[in-house]
Amino acid sequence: MNDQIDHPDTEAHPLDRRAVAAILYAVETNDRQKLIELMEPLHAADIADLLEQIGPYDRARLIRLYDREFDGEILSELHDNIREEVIGLLTPQVLAEAVRDMESDDVVDLVEDLEHPQQQAILHALEDSDRVAVQQSLSYPEYSAGRLMQREVVMAPEHWTVGQAIDHLRRADDLPEQFYHVVLVDPRLRPVANVTLGKLMSSRRDTRLADIAAESFQIFPATQDEGDVAYTFNQYHLISAPVVDDDGRLVGVITIDDAMSILDEEHEEDILRLAGVDEESSLSDTVAATSRRRLPWLGVNLGTAICASLVISQFEASIAALVSLAILMPIVASMGGNAGTQSLTVTVRALATRDLTGSNVWRVVRRELTVGLLNGLVFATVLGTVGMLWFHSPMLGAVIGVALLCNMIIAGFVGTVVPVVLEKVGVDPALASGTFVTTTTDIMGFFIFLGLATVVLL
Amino acid sequence: MNDQIDHPDTEAHPLDRRAVAAILYAVETNDRQKLIELMEPLHAADIADLLEQIGPYDRARLIRLYDREFDGEILSELHDNIREEVIGLLTPQVLAEAVRDMESDDVVDLVEDLEHPQQQAILHALEDSDRVAVQQSLSYPEYSAGRLMQREVVMAPEHWTVGQAIDHLRRADDLPEQFYHVVLVDPRLRPVANVTLGKLMSSRRDTRLADIAAESFQIFPATQDEGDVAYTFNQYHLISAPVVDDDGRLVGVITIDDAMSILDEEHEEDILRLAGVDEESSLSDTVAATSRRRLPWLGVNLGTAICASLVISQFEASIAALVSLAILMPIVASMGGNAGTQSLTVTVRALATRDLTGSNVWRVVRRELTVGLLNGLVFATVLGTVGMLWFHSPMLGAVIGVALLCNMIIAGFVGTVVPVVLEKVGVDPALASGTFVTTTTDIMGFFIFLGLATVVLL
Repeated sequence: MNDQIDHPDTEAHPLDRRAVAAILYAVETNDRQKLIELMEPLHAADIADLLEQIGPYDRARLIRLYDREFDGEILSELHDNIREEVIGLLTPQVLAEAVRDMESDDVVDLVEDLEHPQQQAILHALEDSDRVAVQQSLSYPEYSAGRLMQREVVMAPEHWTVGQAIDHLRRADDLPEQFYHVVLVDPRLRPVANVTLGKLMSSRRDTRLADIAAESFQIFPATQDEGDVAYTFNQYHLISAPVVDDDGRLVGVITIDDAMSILDEEHEEDILRLAGVDEESSLSDTVAATSRRRLPWLGVNLGTAICASLVISQFEASIAALVSLAILMPIVASMGGNAGTQSLTVTVRALATRDLTGSNVWRVVRRELTVGLLNGLVFATVLGTVGMLWFHSPMLGAVIGVALLCNMIIAGFVGTVVPVVLEKVGVDPALASGTFVTTTTDIMGFFIFLGLATVVLL
Repeated sequence: MNDQIDHPDTEAHPLDRRAVAAILYAVETNDRQKLIELMEPLHAADIADLLEQIGPYDRARLIRLYDREFDGEILSELHDNIREEVIGLLTPQVLAEAVRDMESDDVVDLVEDLEHPQQQAILHALEDSDRVAVQQSLSYPEYSAGRLMQREVVMAPEHWTVGQAIDHLRRADDLPEQFYHVVLVDPRLRPVANVTLGKLMSSRRDTRLADIAAESFQIFPATQDEGDVAYTFNQYHLISAPVVDDDGRLVGVITIDDAMSILDEEHEEDILRLAGVDEESSLSDTVAATSRRRLPWLGVNLGTAICASLVISQFEASIAALVSLAILMPIVASMGGNAGTQSLTVTVRALATRDLTGSNVWRVVRRELTVGLLNGLVFATVLGTVGMLWFHSPMLGAVIGVALLCNMIIAGFVGTVVPVVLEKVGVDPALASGTFVTTTTDIMGFFIFLGLATVVLL
């Protein structure tokens, strides 16, 4: 990032240290008036951040004091982990009022992860028509376009003119809060094109809507995966897109802000999974929850580390005869692990952005092998020289150089092939690749170096 | 992800294996008609992907054969690394025609990374008014809101009514391709509010624009960092937002699709940097470029690995006396590295999403230390038992257990504190944290385990 750019200081952020301290002081002193006054200028997203950042004890006291001021939008903005806790803290009246203000797609997002009793409490608080809409959305699979869409759609028959559409819109009294397109539909309610509002505004009244349709137009089946939806929005720069049922009939619309949130979540998932952290993790988790979430991959890692030790133990006699082997062996493993992680991350990322496909996979694998070979030669020379000078043994230098070269080529290979294979068999490549790759480079690194040394030096 | 969800198969993607093969065959046989026919249904973003996926030789032949069909939008969609190469392949006429069709913000994005001669060639191809607009945008710092914005803005005086605004829009003949808001400005051209087109459409003609202004409204200085802009769009669900100069006057507008691209780029940067890969990397890099980009961090890693070996070499005598130490020591280092990477990734991610701030940093550090302690106790017990049974030495089991516990607490500490400190001093925490953290856990792991063993066992 560039030095000439203004980075807003912490002071400028609505939730700086001082603001948080003032709010917590109001809670401490039970000063409801002051609390409301301090919270009033904050956006619901900032209040949600605040609730996530403070401890559970302060959170409970703040919510009780804030009471009826609590807005439904805050619930939408909260991280899943903490939302359930907050809902449990609200009185039934406050909760009912909060959800009644929300858009139907936000209510869906809110209730889908809740336990049954809490879900029922919220559904009962809704008006009948809203409840039906929410229940219909919930009938679509989790993480699908049907769950993501809003049901309020502005549509027009494909044969209408601009004038007809404008008159219709001006007469309508229940237009959605936010909409960017008029969806053109055929007589069977199947969407055929989008017209942007801006285009509508700037066209003559007698223009046919079909003639000013937007170029980029995509239709999503309600059952399509939300990750695919987010990818398509990003790839084709969509602003909103219609969602259809099994018969191709228009049932809702997805807007770019929802797609942006999904893209953000998918990234979070990738980055956490690559590090072996449960993707549901959040800073607001308790210590116990955090420990539990991290245990599984640490356990797997302990298992693979013990396997690597078993490999080393096969060469116990060699190490006893030549302690320098024990001193040098971690370098071979570490360099392989690093090179493998580089290949792995590039590959996982390319799979996520669909830059890596059936048509170029072999070219990419070949490239990674060649890169492993080239960088392997560079570092084999350096490390070989270091080893030779350090232990005054040209042969030891040669052995560690060759072992490093081999391990870096292996790293390039497994770093690319493992995620591609996982993707092929339907497992998220970010999920298990890290452990597979570093286990391979550890074990191979120890095996090749110690094996070669045993044959050549002893 | 859920099993019930439709994943579009590779066949459904516009750029599947067969499509790529057919296109390459048309290139191979020099069949221009066929090539144009095959490329016609593809979106510019897909054509850009295609050019990135094929090799440089095919790329050059395809572009020469495609010739005048080449569209400016393809250039906008290409990855930086390959864009320069493609521009070099276009004839001056094709290039001139391509850029003349582009929006001013896309031209800015195109020329900002080019070498001077190519930049001049493109600027000369533009019409005078467009050239001035592009040059003005280029006067803002790189990665700033000023570079990101489009200069075409739809504005209205704050005192206007809905009727006045609609009449004005209907009369205007140069409205931007895409716009979602009318920006309300005061007499000095300073933006005061946004009105969405949908709201405008559905309000009575005598309503004052100021009364139907959108709730979420943010103004960006032209010099603000684009990462902050993207964060703010995502946090407050903005669709478009005005950009102002130093005097607070409206100079342009940023739309959510640009913010979404930036968010995507920032994620890519984080994920690649965490793995020690140059963030400019792309699958379309040559082998030589890829090797060069990966060398620096591998070099740093070699240095730190040698440091760790130096630590081990201090305990040469202990290892010679007890080879089991060499067998077990990588486990302590590996577990520490994994636990440290988990803490690190969660922290880097929380800093990026601004969930980790001055007001909760100590709570987070304390939590990570406690998690390190808890998980350390679990795995110390397991590994201690394994070590004891494997080498029939209760004391060795105790030593490795204690060493593992210490290293996991250290991992939690450095995994959290290092990125926070880097952020504080203005370095991207994703950039250098990985090496710092694993170096610390490697060195401390070897030192504590071998040191303790030397004192207790020998």
